[in-house]
Amino acid sequence: MPHTPAKAFPLIAALDLGSNSFHMVLAKADHGEVRILERFGEKVQLAAGIDEERNLSEEAMQRGFDCLKRFAQFINGMPPGSVRVVGTNALREARNRAEFIRRAEPILGHPVEVISGREEARLIYLGVSHTLPDTAGRRLVTDIGGGSTEFIVGQRFESQLRESLQMGCVSYTQRYFKDGKITPARYAQAYTAARLELMAIENSLRRLGWDEAVGASGTIRSVCLAIQAGGHGNGEINPEGLAWLKRKIFKLGEVEKLDIEGIKPDRRPIFPAGLAIVEALFDALELTRLAHSEGALREGVLYDLLGRHHHEDVRERTIGALMERYHVDAEQAARVEAKALKTLEQVADAWDLKDDWHRELLVWGSRVHELGLDIAHYHYHKHGAYLIEHSDLAGFSRQDQLTLALLVRGHRRNIPADRFNELGDEGDKLIRLCIVLRFAILFHHIRGHQQMPSVTLKCAAKSLDIRFPDGWLATNPLTRADFEQEAGWLKRVGYQLSVS
Amino acid sequence: MPHTPAKAFPLIAALDLGSNSFHMVLAKADHGEVRILERFGEKVQLAAGIDEERNLSEEAMQRGFDCLKRFAQFINGMPPGSVRVVGTNALREARNRAEFIRRAEPILGHPVEVISGREEARLIYLGVSHTLPDTAGRRLVTDIGGGSTEFIVGQRFESQLRESLQMGCVSYTQRYFKDGKITPARYAQAYTAARLELMAIENSLRRLGWDEAVGASGTIRSVCLAIQAGGHGNGEINPEGLAWLKRKIFKLGEVEKLDIEGIKPDRRPIFPAGLAIVEALFDALELTRLAHSEGALREGVLYDLLGRHHHEDVRERTIGALMERYHVDAEQAARVEAKALKTLEQVADAWDLKDDWHRELLVWGSRVHELGLDIAHYHYHKHGAYLIEHSDLAGFSRQDQLTLALLVRGHRRNIPADRFNELGDEGDKLIRLCIVLRFAILFHHIRGHQQMPSVTLKCAAKSLDIRFPDGWLATNPLTRADFEQEAGWLKRVGYQLSVS
Repeated sequence: MPHTPAKAFPLIAALDLGSNSFHMVLAKADHGEVRILERFGEKVQLAAGIDEERNLSEEAMQRGFDCLKRFAQFINGMPPGSVRVVGTNALREARNRAEFIRRAEPILGHPVEVISGREEARLIYLGVSHTLPDTAGRRLVTDIGGGSTEFIVGQRFESQLRESLQMGCVSYTQRYFKDGKITPARYAQAYTAARLELMAIENSLRRLGWDEAVGASGTIRSVCLAIQAGGHGNGEINPEGLAWLKRKIFKLGEVEKLDIEGIKPDRRPIFPAGLAIVEALFDALELTRLAHSEGALREGVLYDLLGRHHHEDVRERTIGALMERYHVDAEQAARVEAKALKTLEQVADAWDLKDDWHRELLVWGSRVHELGLDIAHYHYHKHGAYLIEHSDLAGFSRQDQLTLALLVRGHRRNIPADRFNELGDEGDKLIRLCIVLRFAILFHHIRGHQQMPSVTLKCAAKSLDIRFPDGWLATNPLTRADFEQEAGWLKRVGYQLSVS
Repeated sequence: MPHTPAKAFPLIAALDLGSNSFHMVLAKADHGEVRILERFGEKVQLAAGIDEERNLSEEAMQRGFDCLKRFAQFINGMPPGSVRVVGTNALREARNRAEFIRRAEPILGHPVEVISGREEARLIYLGVSHTLPDTAGRRLVTDIGGGSTEFIVGQRFESQLRESLQMGCVSYTQRYFKDGKITPARYAQAYTAARLELMAIENSLRRLGWDEAVGASGTIRSVCLAIQAGGHGNGEINPEGLAWLKRKIFKLGEVEKLDIEGIKPDRRPIFPAGLAIVEALFDALELTRLAHSEGALREGVLYDLLGRHHHEDVRERTIGALMERYHVDAEQAARVEAKALKTLEQVADAWDLKDDWHRELLVWGSRVHELGLDIAHYHYHKHGAYLIEHSDLAGFSRQDQLTLALLVRGHRRNIPADRFNELGDEGDKLIRLCIVLRFAILFHHIRGHQQMPSVTLKCAAKSLDIRFPDGWLATNPLTRADFEQEAGWLKRVGYQLSVS
């Protein structure tokens, strides 16, 4: 779980468990830049192994684990926080992803995160923008994956609009070219399906506009290479090249026969679907050219890791944006955060909350616990949890969001023990972290009208003892009543709170 | 369900099914003002009849129905839309409220709505502000009910902040004065509980501030009268009067002995709890005086009815505020709304969608269907439904919100037939209304880039037939594919869509 170390590492690594291929890059951080040392890639075709119940088949998982075992030799010994492993669409889709993760993590010795489509888009942009000249204009970046396609409009290293659509060269191959035949009718079906998907976003992309369009991914590279080899253009995709290539694959008629320069043999089966998607996005976005960039998700993950080491954590900005958007009382949040951190110091040893990750969670929880008030006061802790769970939060993985949402859900009234327990040992720690947050919130319940005294905390495995200065509680019956109620809530999850 | 007639009525009525009493007012609309003709009130004590499983007991319901039977003679014959019946906290709380409503509606011949606490607050403010001189300053209005207490800060006829807390003179009596004994210790418990509740809102109320404080409800009236009769002030509540009254009830020691001028015998049992709440809000809000107003929820309901007749429907403003807050593409919403209304005209007869209520729902659904996009694109119809269900929407009852949320939930992808079916016959109509909305959205899927042709619609009980101009679909394969997908979704809920 912890993936944000304070110190830098000599070596960092990113693994991208994609729907079509798994990739790994090993790099050195060098004055804020990333120097790639090694690249590995294997065609695992996870998406092709998802059955009709949306479960990954055992064979597909095994293909994945075999690949991870090979990758593992390079990263097994690397310290926690220097390696980030992200899963994308196939793992987002698979119902049994928890099983895959549970079996994959011991192989790698590092946690596996499943990231949302927009988070994937953000990281792709980060990767691509670091491989391009640092010009001032606006860029459209697209990445056609096996199961999803990402679109980003951004400037320099900053993405402004991030979208992810459920279409990819592997899933479209299964749907439209399963038996390997290539006909104009099937191609038109794939093309139309892609156009329908694109309708959801083409307007907002166009409204922002861009000065250049760049694509990442194997699909775009192979289309570029094939068009160039055919003598149509200088290595970029253009409408004439696309038309030529389309005629060519229709003429060949079968995927096995796609012996075209620029298209590797193992890409042939998924090439027609990829081409249909490329053509659809040319038409939907009225592109005239699309260049290819070698940067992609895994490079983005590396730069993101590097940013965290250099205190430019994008998650900080995401939390700040949430607070602003939902009109959080920032003064109150700051009071709660300060008290929560001070409290954490006092209980961290006894309650085993010494990870950076717990400290970060507590800080973010303090800042956003009142988010839901902006929707309604009634059950606002639940509304806040809903917003955190379902919003696209740049820099956060799905699991991060769920964990933070759970902390916010539990910050007042009953603590949903069953949902914490689903997380095993980590769940026990999170309940204790939640108790710390609740204490800080109750302590500042009277929102700064009142000078609060200093208190002494003592905690054991299942108890927390709070001592106010002698006589203070007697003259502050509101606070006393508040903590009496709290003792009742904590009792329900097996913790004893005594206040004196 | 329909409660918004276009024409005005000679006579209007409002029923307020409160936690302590039921009230009815009959009035005449007179040049935009309300002239009260009759007032009725009965102490039903619904809240006292809620058991530990949060169910209304049969006896409590029977007390309610007996009262409604008496009220019913006056309103039975009045046309739909001229009577509005609202239930407040006891009905919000009761798990079996659906049963109560099902049995109450045939007695009254009019629909019963359960309104949210903030909606109650808005209506109270509307009622109180119409009984006060129309001054420019800011007002704090509070209403201590049997189960909840409402707080509003507003100016003239407009409320700016609306809050509702779970404390009331009936529920606090049950908790702290059940056996009728009055002791300083019990009073302090009730007072402290009220202070803890108030902490949730006192800061935001104080931040806005006010020039005068006014209270509605029997609790506040009786405290005012008792203090005045005791010679402490001129009919307003003030801290000295409160202190005197508190000493007096401690001395008497039992509710039966509260033979105090200004307190009616049937209010004695719930008076100590009411007084503790009044004192708590004086201290929490640092009040120096609180005047009493005769206006209250039921007067507010009348003025709200009147506003709807005069085309100042607050719900329009609420929907507009939602659109702005969640950055809805207003041009697209307007295109969808226009097409939806035009479509409704064509199918209203065959599909029995002729109520104003359905027309309004369709308009609001068109305007807010994209609300959830502001949270995330993935499953945005669900996010939109969540926001509509849980936000405090001025002018909407709980049922209104749930219905509108369901329409938004069903505007794309699968139509959740089971949730529509829970609504019985009305659910069937709402599915058809949903199909109308979906058609309008699909029709403008290409967001105004394209000039759309005029189409002919024909519908029968379970089918919809759409005819595009000859050849148009062949040259617009995207739209064709869109409607082919739609036919699949509609088939799942038993409707046949044919497009040619």
